[in-house]
Amino acid sequence: MLHKIDAYLETHLDDSIAELSRLVAQPSVGAQNWGIQECAALTAEMLRRRGFDVRILPTAGAPIVFGERQGQSDKTLLFYNHYDVQPPEPLDLWETPPFEPSLRDGKLYGRGVSDDKGHLTARLFALDALLAELGDLPCGVKFIIEGEEETSSASLPGFVRQHLDLLKADACIWEFGGVDHEEAPVQYLGLRGICYVELSVETAAIDVHSGLGGSIFPNAAWRLVWALNTLKGPDERIRLPGFYDKVRPPSQRDIELMAALPETAEVYKQQFGVRAFLKGLREGVELRVEEVFSPTCTICGLTAGYQGPGSKTVQPARASAKVDFRLVPDQQPEDVLDQLRRHLDAEGFADVQIAYLGGQAPARTDPDDPFVTLVGQTGDEVYGKPHRLVPLSGGSGPNAPFVHDLGLPVATAGLGHPDSRAHAPNENIRLDLYLKHAKHMARLMMAFAQ
Amino acid sequence: MLHKIDAYLETHLDDSIAELSRLVAQPSVGAQNWGIQECAALTAEMLRRRGFDVRILPTAGAPIVFGERQGQSDKTLLFYNHYDVQPPEPLDLWETPPFEPSLRDGKLYGRGVSDDKGHLTARLFALDALLAELGDLPCGVKFIIEGEEETSSASLPGFVRQHLDLLKADACIWEFGGVDHEEAPVQYLGLRGICYVELSVETAAIDVHSGLGGSIFPNAAWRLVWALNTLKGPDERIRLPGFYDKVRPPSQRDIELMAALPETAEVYKQQFGVRAFLKGLREGVELRVEEVFSPTCTICGLTAGYQGPGSKTVQPARASAKVDFRLVPDQQPEDVLDQLRRHLDAEGFADVQIAYLGGQAPARTDPDDPFVTLVGQTGDEVYGKPHRLVPLSGGSGPNAPFVHDLGLPVATAGLGHPDSRAHAPNENIRLDLYLKHAKHMARLMMAFAQ
Repeated sequence: MLHKIDAYLETHLDDSIAELSRLVAQPSVGAQNWGIQECAALTAEMLRRRGFDVRILPTAGAPIVFGERQGQSDKTLLFYNHYDVQPPEPLDLWETPPFEPSLRDGKLYGRGVSDDKGHLTARLFALDALLAELGDLPCGVKFIIEGEEETSSASLPGFVRQHLDLLKADACIWEFGGVDHEEAPVQYLGLRGICYVELSVETAAIDVHSGLGGSIFPNAAWRLVWALNTLKGPDERIRLPGFYDKVRPPSQRDIELMAALPETAEVYKQQFGVRAFLKGLREGVELRVEEVFSPTCTICGLTAGYQGPGSKTVQPARASAKVDFRLVPDQQPEDVLDQLRRHLDAEGFADVQIAYLGGQAPARTDPDDPFVTLVGQTGDEVYGKPHRLVPLSGGSGPNAPFVHDLGLPVATAGLGHPDSRAHAPNENIRLDLYLKHAKHMARLMMAFAQ
Repeated sequence: MLHKIDAYLETHLDDSIAELSRLVAQPSVGAQNWGIQECAALTAEMLRRRGFDVRILPTAGAPIVFGERQGQSDKTLLFYNHYDVQPPEPLDLWETPPFEPSLRDGKLYGRGVSDDKGHLTARLFALDALLAELGDLPCGVKFIIEGEEETSSASLPGFVRQHLDLLKADACIWEFGGVDHEEAPVQYLGLRGICYVELSVETAAIDVHSGLGGSIFPNAAWRLVWALNTLKGPDERIRLPGFYDKVRPPSQRDIELMAALPETAEVYKQQFGVRAFLKGLREGVELRVEEVFSPTCTICGLTAGYQGPGSKTVQPARASAKVDFRLVPDQQPEDVLDQLRRHLDAEGFADVQIAYLGGQAPARTDPDDPFVTLVGQTGDEVYGKPHRLVPLSGGSGPNAPFVHDLGLPVATAGLGHPDSRAHAPNENIRLDLYLKHAKHMARLMMAFAQ
């Protein structure tokens, strides 16, 4: 049977790539409110064609496409995907237009081919093979396909909590995944949370000449610098009272898994031009563990006063900073927001305003969960290499409601490769990995149904 | 004789305004390298027409126009003016085009009418009246008219030191001056110095996603914030070692003069929307003394990472701040630059680069200098109000080489008024004050010649 399914996938690859190309040709840029409704409708239609019972459910933001279809067993696999994409800019760096998918050298280029439309169509392609060769799906399958992933999934956690029955399943496959530099498939078993804020200060109605009142007028830029300085010093310790209270240190198993991963120090130095790491770290498992298991407080941006060439003598009336906190289990973004307000007030910075620009809770799946093992094993057959388990990724995403509210093991599997350029110009997928992902997903559903 | 001179000025005002209008119509925006040579030539021609021996002297920047003409007495008065102007932007806020001078409601509008072309032509107008009625100038007159005043006068101090004989004089009238809200003529008897720097940090070759390496990569914005925080805390004390060593406190006479000036607290609150002053100050002479007699460290601008709407999760590879220090006698910008480098190194911020964007030394003239008194007395006759003496202004300018290298008393007198809008759209002068300034300068030269 597996032989037949593989043969189906190999002979029908062009059809699936054609379907993906149609989906990519429909722009769906959430940040620019461009094509969201149209893409939701197109996505729903693709599920309906496969016999799914589909609903397009409204939220305060972009609609969520939900589809379900019964299978031969009682077990249900939930796929989480998203139909929105990052903005295509800067346009001049694309070799071919972002919304005109282009095939060359075994790769398909276009905005969203990898993140996340290709993942969606490769999974549908696996369903096509199963339906063609088995006449049915081996297990029940549900899809939840949101349209706000690239703009922080604000509606998703509430939606999940309001639709626990609808979304009931036995396990979840996450939207992304792929192979690393050594072509080994990687599973990311957790995502850090995030609390993203903008801090701002206003000290006057208008900017004032710095020759006037420099000794007696408050300066918004100074207020901001001093307030930021209270958040974290060069020792990298985040100073919000209670911030570390809920941090779970990595387990011995986590450290074992991190130790088995490839060295990153030289890669980082070459890729980003970082000359030295913080906290005296140089390389090895200590560097990798610190990277993901420590929560962070990052200044993402600073703005105040004059920023052009040369000099302008002005005292800024307004200053602001974008700051993100990456959170590890069991920290919560709402707690951090509270701690931040209380800390600033206590330090004498009640004048610093906080705008909450979004947050996500951290969540992890047990690396020894049987579903994780199954996803790994079924992949090993396809990739011809043992999979690697990353207990926690440095990035963030909306996995918490799936892990904590639906109680699902969440595993990652996908068609990404290290040069996929998600979020960047010339985003691309490799067709060989597209085919492998479809073969992997078909195998997974058959094994999962048992 | 004074009556004849006044009559000449009253009947020839239109001619002088026409000459000013021609000068304003010649743009001379140093920051945009626009019309500088042409305006220098036009200025030189205006002096030549009055029988001056004129030279256009090159510098590393804009040429300096120098002119001299003997008078009836051996005494020589030096006028310092500048022919460059501020950029006219934002253009859409001008009611009439900035380089098409427009007369309405007793005011002339245009870029540079007040700062500083009107001052120059009003002084030439005074010479015209003296030449017409006396047949000669009562005293020798020299003009030094530079073209880099609006871009920090980088060439001027060196030029003065190299031309001490050429510039030899007995006293100097500064480029600006005017009346306050109560129509009283004001003399500013000193200018603070300035040391303007850009601090910058680079921690990586490119910005890095904040999900990646946030715990282990250095962040340029954090480095900048911590470095700035070492310069000054909320107690407003500037922490560079040695910074205050050369600060001269105000004398009893300075405080007497400051006490005689109008209250500023409410004006500042209303004009700038400042709610409270620093250091617990509320009003009165204490507020005014602190404003100008304390040196400052002002953040004029901050730049790092993402500054657009919403959130972007990025660790900035580069961050920079524009910082100015306003200096009081006898601080020197070169000393502060040294202190800053040594301080940053000592505090662990050798990675913070300093770009020196310009500096000027502070300088003051004795408020009881006979020339200051003479300028005041000759003005009192014209303005019908006693003049006010401000021992030190909060702003900066290149008066130090005149005071310290040429050894001249420098007094200010001019045609400005509180709504002149120098550096802003709709810059204007009042024709009544233009005429008064010419009358004042004619009287001054006659009295000075004695």
